[in-house]
Amino acid sequence: MLVAGATGFAGALAAHLLWRHPRFEVARITGRSEVGRPLDAVYPRYRVPLIIEELDLDRLGELDGAVVAYPHAASAPVVAALRARGVRVCDLSADFRLRELATYERWYGPHPHPELLPEAVYGLAELHRAAIADAGLVATPGCYPTASTLALAPLARAGLIADLVIDAKQGLSGAGRGATWQTHFSNSGENILPYNIVHHRHTPEIEEQLSELDPTHPTLRVQFTPHLVPLDQGELVDCYVTPTRPVTQGELDGMYEAAYSSESFVELTSQPAEVRDVRETNFCRLHVALSEHTGKVVVLSAIDNLWKGTSSQAVQNLNLMFGMPETEGLL
Amino acid sequence: MLVAGATGFAGALAAHLLWRHPRFEVARITGRSEVGRPLDAVYPRYRVPLIIEELDLDRLGELDGAVVAYPHAASAPVVAALRARGVRVCDLSADFRLRELATYERWYGPHPHPELLPEAVYGLAELHRAAIADAGLVATPGCYPTASTLALAPLARAGLIADLVIDAKQGLSGAGRGATWQTHFSNSGENILPYNIVHHRHTPEIEEQLSELDPTHPTLRVQFTPHLVPLDQGELVDCYVTPTRPVTQGELDGMYEAAYSSESFVELTSQPAEVRDVRETNFCRLHVALSEHTGKVVVLSAIDNLWKGTSSQAVQNLNLMFGMPETEGLL
Amino acid sequence: MLVAGATGFAGALAAHLLWRHPRFEVARITGRSEVGRPLDAVYPRYRVPLIIEELDLDRLGELDGAVVAYPHAASAPVVAALRARGVRVCDLSADFRLRELATYERWYGPHPHPELLPEAVYGLAELHRAAIADAGLVATPGCYPTASTLALAPLARAGLIADLVIDAKQGLSGAGRGATWQTHFSNSGENILPYNIVHHRHTPEIEEQLSELDPTHPTLRVQFTPHLVPLDQGELVDCYVTPTRPVTQGELDGMYEAAYSSESFVELTSQPAEVRDVRETNFCRLHVALSEHTGKVVVLSAIDNLWKGTSSQAVQNLNLMFGMPETEGLL
Amino acid sequence: MLVAGATGFAGALAAHLLWRHPRFEVARITGRSEVGRPLDAVYPRYRVPLIIEELDLDRLGELDGAVVAYPHAASAPVVAALRARGVRVCDLSADFRLRELATYERWYGPHPHPELLPEAVYGLAELHRAAIADAGLVATPGCYPTASTLALAPLARAGLIADLVIDAKQGLSGAGRGATWQTHFSNSGENILPYNIVHHRHTPEIEEQLSELDPTHPTLRVQFTPHLVPLDQGELVDCYVTPTRPVTQGELDGMYEAAYSSESFVELTSQPAEVRDVRETNFCRLHVALSEHTGKVVVLSAIDNLWKGTSSQAVQNLNLMFGMPETEGLL
Repeated sequence: MLVAGATGFAGALAAHLLWRHPRFEVARITGRSEVGRPLDAVYPRYRVPLIIEELDLDRLGELDGAVVAYPHAASAPVVAALRARGVRVCDLSADFRLRELATYERWYGPHPHPELLPEAVYGLAELHRAAIADAGLVATPGCYPTASTLALAPLARAGLIADLVIDAKQGLSGAGRGATWQTHFSNSGENILPYNIVHHRHTPEIEEQLSELDPTHPTLRVQFTPHLVPLDQGELVDCYVTPTRPVTQGELDGMYEAAYSSESFVELTSQPAEVRDVRETNFCRLHVALSEHTGKVVVLSAIDNLWKGTSSQAVQNLNLMFGMPETEGLL
Repeated sequence: MLVAGATGFAGALAAHLLWRHPRFEVARITGRSEVGRPLDAVYPRYRVPLIIEELDLDRLGELDGAVVAYPHAASAPVVAALRARGVRVCDLSADFRLRELATYERWYGPHPHPELLPEAVYGLAELHRAAIADAGLVATPGCYPTASTLALAPLARAGLIADLVIDAKQGLSGAGRGATWQTHFSNSGENILPYNIVHHRHTPEIEEQLSELDPTHPTLRVQFTPHLVPLDQGELVDCYVTPTRPVTQGELDGMYEAAYSSESFVELTSQPAEVRDVRETNFCRLHVALSEHTGKVVVLSAIDNLWKGTSSQAVQNLNLMFGMPETEGLL
Repeated sequence: MLVAGATGFAGALAAHLLWRHPRFEVARITGRSEVGRPLDAVYPRYRVPLIIEELDLDRLGELDGAVVAYPHAASAPVVAALRARGVRVCDLSADFRLRELATYERWYGPHPHPELLPEAVYGLAELHRAAIADAGLVATPGCYPTASTLALAPLARAGLIADLVIDAKQGLSGAGRGATWQTHFSNSGENILPYNIVHHRHTPEIEEQLSELDPTHPTLRVQFTPHLVPLDQGELVDCYVTPTRPVTQGELDGMYEAAYSSESFVELTSQPAEVRDVRETNFCRLHVALSEHTGKVVVLSAIDNLWKGTSSQAVQNLNLMFGMPETEGLL
Repeated sequence: MLVAGATGFAGALAAHLLWRHPRFEVARITGRSEVGRPLDAVYPRYRVPLIIEELDLDRLGELDGAVVAYPHAASAPVVAALRARGVRVCDLSADFRLRELATYERWYGPHPHPELLPEAVYGLAELHRAAIADAGLVATPGCYPTASTLALAPLARAGLIADLVIDAKQGLSGAGRGATWQTHFSNSGENILPYNIVHHRHTPEIEEQLSELDPTHPTLRVQFTPHLVPLDQGELVDCYVTPTRPVTQGELDGMYEAAYSSESFVELTSQPAEVRDVRETNFCRLHVALSEHTGKVVVLSAIDNLWKGTSSQAVQNLNLMFGMPETEGLL
């Protein structure tokens, strides 16, 4: 296994999870910075002693799988090169998450390798398990779409979403490893930081996934607002759904039970979901409540943004791709 | 001036603000606990050396005004006794905030003194300035209704609110001084705590205020969800409004400018409002954005829950009640 | 395996670690509160579905080992009863940590079972590995003595400690699960809480351990000051040693290498030790520095107070007691 | 009044405090970045609407005083130019804090204006009040020396300090406004960051001040270790003193009473000093305890590192320099 881009939060955690995984072997890790240093000098807590190398596609050696953790646009060329060598890739960037090329280019600019879009499978195992198992290229979703899509899939499938507001809260690790005024403790501590209020580029990803599930509503529009709150890892997504018809709490409970009772990593809770309960795990905790007062459905979805929201979800996908138990190395 | 209930967060801060106020004199402070101790032993940072006394209504001496900071139901009898002695009262409890007795009793139980409801004025100066100046009894709103009503008043007045979701985030001081598992650092740190998901008792207060302002929509229903996030003081309220008709950003800006440009304590911001910028102040910062994507209006409202959300707003009201400049002691 | 006292922070984590341990089986868990509820309702993040029972010593069934996580004085009777039934016990309380009965009674009051003191082994594997392997009763040290003793053992053995100041910082989980004003987020957040400034009852435990190691200095007196700082799990202990004779950095490095290079859970670091790097691990990270300016030796020791400071150290001890690899279930 | 360097934490707070000061007038503020923007766009919470200008020494206009908040070495030339124009300066850098040129140059490199050292007065009003009142150049001490010197001055004057260890903890604002990995929330949150373990450049400043006070001990050496802990503003300094002779608690109390009972900004506390109680104030809280066990004296000193540790102390100095009450604008 190769981890390309192991110096960012996502790649480093993927390297850590694969390093301690009972069945994968991490052959090498690469980075665009910190080359020549062991990863455990950069991230002591992960205790991965491998040396960070420059990525040299001609000297990869025997390799059957790779995690690519580069920023969008930088990722696609690496993915393309790996695919050309027959390597099965789990990509963590936005480059292959959107089905519609036009949507990608509206938010991210020209796509470096649009020819790979058709073969990419969206890496949310709870929705696309079989396709992931066979895929050569899996596009692991971002943390907001992961939490939101899991929260809403049962309602979307039932054609129940007439109107949708998502208010998302995330810890500072979601802002990445870059040191900015935003991530400075003296700014982010004792604060709540709303950002990209009315235009966040994860919105189309959520819309695409939900619209695909919804037999009746192909042009769902999501009002999505993200916030950074003063914690490190953890994400809570509050989904406010105006249903297309009146529903009961019992009906909702049944719907979510049916969707998730056999899932290893989705927990339905009778109490409001809290991020502390999923910290450093691959679990998603969901709480579904009907408001008698407004008739709206409120779904709370809690994940660890770096784990289920990114890197442990990648391992879940790799487990599927390489024929292992889906939970291997994740419990 | 009397501060009754000075040992809770709200009463202690009110005592502090009045103690350092250039024109009010704090004659005595009372509490239901910590009697006999100086307030600065209980709250060293407030540096108010007055002794906490038991409340003895027969030995109040000469008194023209009082702040009452008791829990609901406990407050009304004290307020009634003070009113009977001709004292003008600024109450911080929920007892006199709701106009409809039935609404109060649905959420809080039997009202101890319903006969005082007609004379109570809702203590939001930006909406009820003149009435507050003449009032004998002012019911200072809670922090969620303060932030929400200021955020939405211009839209309500214009009859623009067709559907309303409010997602509120608040620091732990909002949970009060009681030590519980909820407020334990090991629970509330590195966590996000949603609570009272589909039934919070501040909802009717918001609905009553907005409905009064709205010439067209007497039965507005608010979907309101509060959260505790890991900070001490600060509250951000995200309001998601589906407008009754399409609006433009320019129209919105004009509406909010008209409503607030002459207000001393409301700040309209071009950047998303952050709670750090209002910490330990009486300011409310508002940011209004139209989503081109969904047509919804998003209003962010940031206050300090203990200041503008409670105690400094009480001082703002007292300034008005006693003929002083509204900003006295608050800038 | 029995976990008695599974509702406190220490017992719950011990139950979690043993539950996921590949070779121990947790037969039952007991508590003095929350009886009848599954542990994962009280601590959702630990995902241990066992029901919390009342402790009934007559119905324990077949049992070869137990973790006892009761407060001091409450622990000893349970330990005694278990020992009488031939169960090997890893105790987490202070009841069997001190060798001198008089010292115990000065700090904690009358000892309920002093007759067990002679058989108790101090549960710091790095110092007492062989004895732990044979012990019937292991007294797992508290978090401050663990971090301090590991930091100072090499200097103590070399007779180098002439004067010793320890300044300790710990997260709020160290204050236990009880909800108090101390642990209230509005008190402990944005604060630093020194406590028991000149008389902390972990001091004699540290003094006893170091004096035993030191061939020359039987009456070592430690100046120890603990603080709570606004984080959840993590402890840093700064030890300031005036050496009995001048030393060099090279000499110090050699001494610590010799003591710890073959230890699985002690890491010597060239950078100052940080608690984030040991969070939720059984590692202790040590950094040793000589001040050229004062001639003093500064040793920094970082552990997770709930893990290496308590519960994972108990598992390390149980591994030794039951003949398993010392790291089993802990990496 | 001019504030030069108003874009850093120290200069911005000084500008804020002087802007709201009842008797000073802030004529202009300058910065090396953000030129042309109003200060309240950079620091919204300070609400200072002045435009940040480039510093043009030839166009300062009439000016009688200035605060200079540049980094060391950058400050001295500005101070020299202002002094040449007859402006009285309160400098916040390290450039004029040390009396010994050689000591400065060992830690900071060549001094740009050593000729000004003789006229500089150390800006700790509690020790040098009269000299500050007459000074043309006041060197405001850093936060660590402020807290430490106030903590130890009574002991130093009595010749009681035989050995001294200082363990200091500070919030992230102490690391300055620069965004680095150190100040990233994902690093500094849930962490304790020791730094400059055995060589911090504030050490000689503390040693110089204490040695001057001590009639017997001219070569006092301080073992000083600073830490960053996860809060924004606040600093606690624990001083461990081995006294030159045995002392009693009563003697200590008398000594500190004598030194500080008439000081406006020093509070002696019977409980351990906490940083929350001095947040956003010019107060220093001191707690003095004798350890019966070791004979050592432990002094805890709590300040707000940005206020009494820097900017409000500058205002205290300016009050003295310009003949105003020392507390003006600071209570």
